[in-house]
Amino acid sequence: MSGRDWLAMEEWSVEAVDALLDLAARIKRGEVTGGLEHKVLAMVFMDPSLRTRASMETAMFLHGGHALCLEPGKGSWALETELDVVMDGTTVEHIIEAARVLSRYADALAVRSFPKGTDWAVEREDHTIRNFARYATVPVINLESSRRHPCQGLADALTLREHLGETTGKRFVLQWAWHPKALPTAVPASAAIAAAHLGMEVVVARPDGFDLDPDDYRAIGDLAGRRGGSLTITDDLDGAIDGAHAVYPKSWGALAHFGRPDDERASRDGKRDWRLTAARMARTAGGRGIAMHCLPVRRNVEMDGAVLDGPQSAVIDQAENRLHAQRALLLELIGSGS
Amino acid sequence: MSGRDWLAMEEWSVEAVDALLDLAARIKRGEVTGGLEHKVLAMVFMDPSLRTRASMETAMFLHGGHALCLEPGKGSWALETELDVVMDGTTVEHIIEAARVLSRYADALAVRSFPKGTDWAVEREDHTIRNFARYATVPVINLESSRRHPCQGLADALTLREHLGETTGKRFVLQWAWHPKALPTAVPASAAIAAAHLGMEVVVARPDGFDLDPDDYRAIGDLAGRRGGSLTITDDLDGAIDGAHAVYPKSWGALAHFGRPDDERASRDGKRDWRLTAARMARTAGGRGIAMHCLPVRRNVEMDGAVLDGPQSAVIDQAENRLHAQRALLLELIGSGS
Amino acid sequence: MSGRDWLAMEEWSVEAVDALLDLAARIKRGEVTGGLEHKVLAMVFMDPSLRTRASMETAMFLHGGHALCLEPGKGSWALETELDVVMDGTTVEHIIEAARVLSRYADALAVRSFPKGTDWAVEREDHTIRNFARYATVPVINLESSRRHPCQGLADALTLREHLGETTGKRFVLQWAWHPKALPTAVPASAAIAAAHLGMEVVVARPDGFDLDPDDYRAIGDLAGRRGGSLTITDDLDGAIDGAHAVYPKSWGALAHFGRPDDERASRDGKRDWRLTAARMARTAGGRGIAMHCLPVRRNVEMDGAVLDGPQSAVIDQAENRLHAQRALLLELIGSGS
Repeated sequence: MSGRDWLAMEEWSVEAVDALLDLAARIKRGEVTGGLEHKVLAMVFMDPSLRTRASMETAMFLHGGHALCLEPGKGSWALETELDVVMDGTTVEHIIEAARVLSRYADALAVRSFPKGTDWAVEREDHTIRNFARYATVPVINLESSRRHPCQGLADALTLREHLGETTGKRFVLQWAWHPKALPTAVPASAAIAAAHLGMEVVVARPDGFDLDPDDYRAIGDLAGRRGGSLTITDDLDGAIDGAHAVYPKSWGALAHFGRPDDERASRDGKRDWRLTAARMARTAGGRGIAMHCLPVRRNVEMDGAVLDGPQSAVIDQAENRLHAQRALLLELIGSGS
Repeated sequence: MSGRDWLAMEEWSVEAVDALLDLAARIKRGEVTGGLEHKVLAMVFMDPSLRTRASMETAMFLHGGHALCLEPGKGSWALETELDVVMDGTTVEHIIEAARVLSRYADALAVRSFPKGTDWAVEREDHTIRNFARYATVPVINLESSRRHPCQGLADALTLREHLGETTGKRFVLQWAWHPKALPTAVPASAAIAAAHLGMEVVVARPDGFDLDPDDYRAIGDLAGRRGGSLTITDDLDGAIDGAHAVYPKSWGALAHFGRPDDERASRDGKRDWRLTAARMARTAGGRGIAMHCLPVRRNVEMDGAVLDGPQSAVIDQAENRLHAQRALLLELIGSGS
Repeated sequence: MSGRDWLAMEEWSVEAVDALLDLAARIKRGEVTGGLEHKVLAMVFMDPSLRTRASMETAMFLHGGHALCLEPGKGSWALETELDVVMDGTTVEHIIEAARVLSRYADALAVRSFPKGTDWAVEREDHTIRNFARYATVPVINLESSRRHPCQGLADALTLREHLGETTGKRFVLQWAWHPKALPTAVPASAAIAAAHLGMEVVVARPDGFDLDPDDYRAIGDLAGRRGGSLTITDDLDGAIDGAHAVYPKSWGALAHFGRPDDERASRDGKRDWRLTAARMARTAGGRGIAMHCLPVRRNVEMDGAVLDGPQSAVIDQAENRLHAQRALLLELIGSGS
């Protein structure tokens, strides 16, 4: 019964991802209409959203379909995500039933669920999205899980292709940034995987103690290697940015302190200078490298307003590309011609 | 101005309900398209929903219409439900105005409002949904009120017809189940009414002190009698299940303690064994009776995971049938051919 | 890139507003269909809504389009509205990015943002809606800002034309009303501007200390003067109502105490008689003047139930006219023929 799921970009073949990017570019040029008539996407948001909800709902509508937006714990019942539990506590509906039932109403499910626990060894298994996919009988789309945000990654790749043209061997810097909170690693990992897919020279510039999960480094390095690129990890931010073609500042929490907020916060102390400034953007290739961000962005904290509002900023194009990337994805997964 | 309302199944003629069930079956087979073009359904949720919202919104879309989802007290204004009140407290909009105004925007209204008060003598009058119907000038659909959940009942009846074929005289057990909270009686009453409509031998198996409202028993018994069935009330759960064709575990609070949570909770003490287990399902007719539930269900509390995931479970079909039953209802109430 | 914005009725030419009213009347008669196919409206609600959301969403649907409903701080990220801020506090997304991004997904944005601050000198600048309009690259529609609610004003004007026919020189009384809370001035200012647009004799009847902002009086007086009407301010409520053609009771807080709730509340003490009663409605022109309100209304506080439910009430027509006025506005701003 189940079609393919879109849980992580690296789980699809590189040919299939390239085909999605080609289709997204054609859609953006206005060459593709219809294809989702009478189709329903059920979105389950366990965490907030602006771009994702707006772009998914718009994507379905523009091709004749409809997106439902369910928010467990707010308008919908609080969902239980652990298997094998006696549900006599606060959760009132199990994701097993939610996934099975929504599969009867909708042609695909889309789920957002940020990491919630206190143990990275558990959260890194990405149980919630994986269990949705296990019990759903229609394709499941990841709208950001504990580990991945592949819709964002697809938009990132589309934006890099648009702005840089040929991407192989060009330098993509994933820059750790200071932020008042410990954020998840799903977006930075997915962005680096997208750059790896494009065969770029991926540089992760982060302070000691702020490494991504070893599995993420392996996924990025393997994919980059197969596509003619590479992965380098450094704590020399300015050196990384020198000559870069794209800089993607993004904050994430120290995984070694996952679930211990006070320790984690202390590990970020004194690092507010890990911020993308206009001076740093001037060091990029020809002074014309692009600045990227998934949004929402903390102005003057992760990236200066002068960069966000300046000519090198690609962040609004990147957000727009969420729409086109997801239109391609939806047509591929549940389109009437798929 | 006003069309018919769908507030309680037993308020419609048995012929009209049978016609809805026949239409729902045709819809499920894919034989009915369109009919709700340019039609708007305004849904007012005073309480949470997953299936109801998702299935109603999908139902409208699949036939060309649109469902609005309003949540008073969250995105919308907190609604006053008492008549003749000086509104100088916390509520900011009266349901009189809400019903009248939404009737100008939409072709039908649909309202969910669980019992909130502390006095069953008041709540049993079902004032909120009845007042919406009184002041609306378009049909009003009950999405679960203090007393009834007739959309669920319609889906229950459709499921029983599908799984059992001829239903007259077959045994339907409404089984009280332990639950950590005092739940409303709307779903169990409506399920038993649905089984009564099908002429089944309705058995309500509950501990002493957990009777449904006398009016509910009267409605169930009267309808069952007219349709060739019967109503029995017992505290012998295993005896009731012996040879049953369908078992519907469902919790509800003791009405004698309505609005007094501590007393009510104490009355549930020691009754965690009122749970639908695989051993009990083996006692059903030929060991092949079906297990039903409206969902959301507390796994391993109301019903064991082994039953929910096993071959006798009809709960996912039942949830799917919400969609088809409501498509039939909407076409009947506001369809362009109605 | 940007089309026209709809931020305040008085910022459009009187001819353009008259054309909107004419189009709305034709739409209400069923003479206009389609025009918004494949169009998306992104609504951003920073405050609750029933009529506005329901009527906007219905308006888009009835002409083939789709409305997104985003609620920052609930399902969406909390928005920062101050420019030039270091975002290391609780807000996670700036309206600059929100406006720019939503402009890439939608054909128009619509924003509701009530006054929040403690300083009227700041709030009266209407920064939030003005900044949305500044950074959006598509038309922005005001769904009620600190200063204006022009969609309500348009519906008010349509209702006055319908009920009174020729409006020039007829008397419109904006009546201050007691209310348990200090409400904003956006609705009363916009209603008086609508009546001024129709060339009416506008009378603001309020207790001393409850004047609208001087700019509002200037806008009302200037527009009334240009259209053959006038503006009078009085504390003689019964005298104002004698012979009036329309009475619009509405509460608003004393601007002199803006942001100081205790002082403001004290200034309302002893004024509960500023309520629209049946006796007062009998004093209107021929005893047949109409009673208006934007809704939600506090029954028996701002207006008696006997007036709301009586033959002189125009409040439900007024609410219905929100739909037709907004259909006209949307067709004008983003319709395929516009």
